[in-house]
Amino acid sequence: MLQTAPAAEASAWLASFSTCLANRDIDALLDLFVEDCYWRDLVAFTWNVKTMEGKAAVADMLAATLAPTSPTGFALVSASGQSGNVEGWFDFETKAGRGQGVFRLEGGKCRTVLTTLQSLRGHEEATGGTRPMGVRHGADRNRQTWSELRAIEQAELGVERQPYCLIIGGGQGGIMLGARLKQLGVPTIIVEKNRKAGDSWRNRYRSLVLHDPVWYDHLPYIPFPPHWPVFTPKDKMGDWLEMYVKVMELNYWSSTEVVKARYDAAAKLWTVNLLREGQPVSLRPSQLIFATGAYGPPRFVDLPGANDFNGEILHSSAYSDGSKYSGKRVVVIGAASSGHDVSVDLWEAGADVTMVQRSPTTVVRSETLMELAFDIYSETAVTNGIDVDKADMIAATTPFALQPQAQRALYDKIRARDADFYRRLEASGFLLDFGEDQTGLMMKAYRTGSGYYVDVGASELIIAGEIGLKAGVPIDRLTPSGIRFADGTELPADAIIQSTGFQSMHEMVARIVDRETADTVGPCWGLGSGMRNDPGPWHGELRNMYKPTAQEALWFHGGNLALSRFFSKFLALQLKARYEGIETPVYRTAL
Amino acid sequence: MLQTAPAAEASAWLASFSTCLANRDIDALLDLFVEDCYWRDLVAFTWNVKTMEGKAAVADMLAATLAPTSPTGFALVSASGQSGNVEGWFDFETKAGRGQGVFRLEGGKCRTVLTTLQSLRGHEEATGGTRPMGVRHGADRNRQTWSELRAIEQAELGVERQPYCLIIGGGQGGIMLGARLKQLGVPTIIVEKNRKAGDSWRNRYRSLVLHDPVWYDHLPYIPFPPHWPVFTPKDKMGDWLEMYVKVMELNYWSSTEVVKARYDAAAKLWTVNLLREGQPVSLRPSQLIFATGAYGPPRFVDLPGANDFNGEILHSSAYSDGSKYSGKRVVVIGAASSGHDVSVDLWEAGADVTMVQRSPTTVVRSETLMELAFDIYSETAVTNGIDVDKADMIAATTPFALQPQAQRALYDKIRARDADFYRRLEASGFLLDFGEDQTGLMMKAYRTGSGYYVDVGASELIIAGEIGLKAGVPIDRLTPSGIRFADGTELPADAIIQSTGFQSMHEMVARIVDRETADTVGPCWGLGSGMRNDPGPWHGELRNMYKPTAQEALWFHGGNLALSRFFSKFLALQLKARYEGIETPVYRTAL
Repeated sequence: MLQTAPAAEASAWLASFSTCLANRDIDALLDLFVEDCYWRDLVAFTWNVKTMEGKAAVADMLAATLAPTSPTGFALVSASGQSGNVEGWFDFETKAGRGQGVFRLEGGKCRTVLTTLQSLRGHEEATGGTRPMGVRHGADRNRQTWSELRAIEQAELGVERQPYCLIIGGGQGGIMLGARLKQLGVPTIIVEKNRKAGDSWRNRYRSLVLHDPVWYDHLPYIPFPPHWPVFTPKDKMGDWLEMYVKVMELNYWSSTEVVKARYDAAAKLWTVNLLREGQPVSLRPSQLIFATGAYGPPRFVDLPGANDFNGEILHSSAYSDGSKYSGKRVVVIGAASSGHDVSVDLWEAGADVTMVQRSPTTVVRSETLMELAFDIYSETAVTNGIDVDKADMIAATTPFALQPQAQRALYDKIRARDADFYRRLEASGFLLDFGEDQTGLMMKAYRTGSGYYVDVGASELIIAGEIGLKAGVPIDRLTPSGIRFADGTELPADAIIQSTGFQSMHEMVARIVDRETADTVGPCWGLGSGMRNDPGPWHGELRNMYKPTAQEALWFHGGNLALSRFFSKFLALQLKARYEGIETPVYRTAL
Repeated sequence: MLQTAPAAEASAWLASFSTCLANRDIDALLDLFVEDCYWRDLVAFTWNVKTMEGKAAVADMLAATLAPTSPTGFALVSASGQSGNVEGWFDFETKAGRGQGVFRLEGGKCRTVLTTLQSLRGHEEATGGTRPMGVRHGADRNRQTWSELRAIEQAELGVERQPYCLIIGGGQGGIMLGARLKQLGVPTIIVEKNRKAGDSWRNRYRSLVLHDPVWYDHLPYIPFPPHWPVFTPKDKMGDWLEMYVKVMELNYWSSTEVVKARYDAAAKLWTVNLLREGQPVSLRPSQLIFATGAYGPPRFVDLPGANDFNGEILHSSAYSDGSKYSGKRVVVIGAASSGHDVSVDLWEAGADVTMVQRSPTTVVRSETLMELAFDIYSETAVTNGIDVDKADMIAATTPFALQPQAQRALYDKIRARDADFYRRLEASGFLLDFGEDQTGLMMKAYRTGSGYYVDVGASELIIAGEIGLKAGVPIDRLTPSGIRFADGTELPADAIIQSTGFQSMHEMVARIVDRETADTVGPCWGLGSGMRNDPGPWHGELRNMYKPTAQEALWFHGGNLALSRFFSKFLALQLKARYEGIETPVYRTAL
């Protein structure tokens, strides 16, 4: 590293930090932090995904974890910033493996520090210079070729040999976690109800494309190539996932449904009953990971009089082809992402569409988001040496508690920039909001995973009246021919599509394990912000995601492509450590 | 660029070079070169693949090409070396597009310069910041989704709409060229006789793995990921190619045989008769590219008495499964790569194998080659910032005429290092050589594509007598039960496998077009070194490969993965220029 002023300052702070940790001198260490400090740890110290907020929480965590973690070897990798307000990236080691971290100083003291476990000692991934040879040189009459060994693995795993991990759900989340576990050598089966990998994308509505740009969407190990479109169409995404499963050599059981799972705490094994292509199969994995969708099973709102209604009622997740609604009157209930997308898809197919908006929605134009919010996930970032792994670390450095402030500032800019657009949208009667605390889309995504739309075209159709809108009036009941609202108006409908989101993933636990276990574990996702649909207490991290839950050997994985990519690494390391019998003392607090 | 001493020297030389070119002052320019100079041009000046050797050849080329090329904008990118002996990398522009080059000075004057065309102005590939958006924002009742457009392209191309290029052969060469053309927007169909992309690898013998390491083998656009094995097993390679064809959206007609092709010089169109899944189809492409295999159809040696032989005779390219030869006596004729590999495969299957060696073979141990010859294609190179594209340019800077000298020095090292191995191998009776001029494996590969083996295990079996050897004795004739040699000895055999290599690819032209066209075009591959099987005159580049041939609109592509990767770029640019109607004055000489 070049000896610069920030580097000297960062080195000095890191040396003090390191000395305090080595001396187990927590009091002295706290002197290096500001009062309002945050220590975010991803598995390195806590064997958990956890943010300690304030000095007392940091002290408590260190008292519990310093001895088992034994951190050493702190070395500055890079530093930047102005005197007193310096950011430093560092490597370190723990008893279990190697870590990476980032600290930010304010007035010479630490405001935030991130510590992450990157690999387990003696169990590093074989990559680059340590990749496998792929062939045993020399002649061997007992040679088994790659394809023979692969065929044996596929035939035996789950039959003669039990997987250590069973991942329920073979969408993007399950696939990425499966790929990490494969590279770590953890025997894993992914089960997926669809016929082929990628079908969870292919089966969606015709016009679906990713709303996030390609730089944000990479899978681990095989990034999208540089000619890949900015916004991936759903079928192209499906093909990529199918290719990925094959090339990464995942053990992927498609056309497989999970019937029942129960945990034997004495044997520390699950028994999972499956229907694999219709045939009953029973597996005994040690770890069970739910990756059944970002948020859980479809949520239906109760529609009084639904039995009277003569038309079709379906959930947006079951909607794929608009052509049969051409010339029909379709009401879409819900005004978040899928509500908007499905409405456009229906409009394009020639349906007469009305969107029923029950509560306000955060809308941001895609171009605006690309310009203002994806700065570290962009071609410019790549040109400046910020690849997706570095961008993920940068994104992780800011604890959830500090994000609203930055997001509010972002949305001040967004609203100023698109003032005319928002004025016209509100003039159409659309109920617009930016969250209770004006923090916009991303915080809604973390808190509830709902209530927002990245505008790629629907808003102008709403403004122009091409997509009808019924906003803010409660539904009274369905009639044989449509919907009657509390204000006495009626909306005729041949079909009703509930774009009403998804339940928490722990509802899948209730279905597959039992209600008691689901209740013990509690809901997934959300931060405990105390905002609508995200009740407190404050958690500081996403509830139950990527980390130990209240049920031993039960885990949750999911989120968008970016979160699935980043956290699959830390979840895979937690599972690998258990597979290898490495001690994993989990630091838990009531918070 | 940092101002270093080499940079200053390189800048000064490049400025003089640039001025001479701008002034069309060839005499002054020649003063910047040493007498024994080389200018290698890949499409930038010559619309050809050509090395000018000596000042007179350089002068002749420039006299013909300077006006149409109008090179400008020479800018140094990097420089290294010692005073007087500096290497400089530079960018430049021509009338048609952008170029990259490398020059090497000796005593302040230019010994070698490489000029390459990298892109065509106004027809640059959409990549990185110019990649497609992938979605048209806004609602559109006439929207065609990605999958619909792709289905239309596949249904129409070759039916309602003619491809501009037809590539015969869907192995690695055809696939890489097809990918480049796709990214350049040239409508192209690849036809392949096998059922699936990748089958040309899958169908080979069981134990086959690439003999070259992964760093040398990347395909364009989607490099192998960092956990990919060093030596790719054949079926894994097959899967990768199959994935690649799908993800790169190539128009790939499998199960398709080419029956006949004829050129209409007036219409400037080929008529190509195909059997696509058994159904006759006729195509009218403008350009026909043979990519039917590195060197051409299988070569069979004449075996007198073959009709008397009671056993099976087959070519190594048709050999895939050794298990049926277990316990049988098999004679393998030929002692180059496939002869060795097939012998090991048979030995592993439990056959009693004897290799018949008719002429000396160059053998190099794989580990040795990895350590001494693949320095720029290695993990170390990657760590030092030499990615595969940079390595390809480095490799291209040395003209063929200067390679024997470097190769001789390399083989002096190799022979010293493995002296004991070579002593033991020769003691077994094996006929070892390093080429007539002691230049080893790589020069044999360029000159004839035959006569060498990268040892991954066979040699020790030969040394141990596990694989029998009959070396240097001509075959007299076959008998009902085996082979009788000129020395009167007999070798009993249940089967004979001819591992006798391949004919020149122009023999495929004779089969598919006609003998006259094949003779007009002449053989493919080889340098004209005057060595055995590579008759003069000296060409300085690979005969007929990747460049215009004597037959308008007929091209050849092939070679190993590395050559196919690198030259597919320059062949694709030549085809794209013609597709766009850009002037492509080809500089040809008798040489």
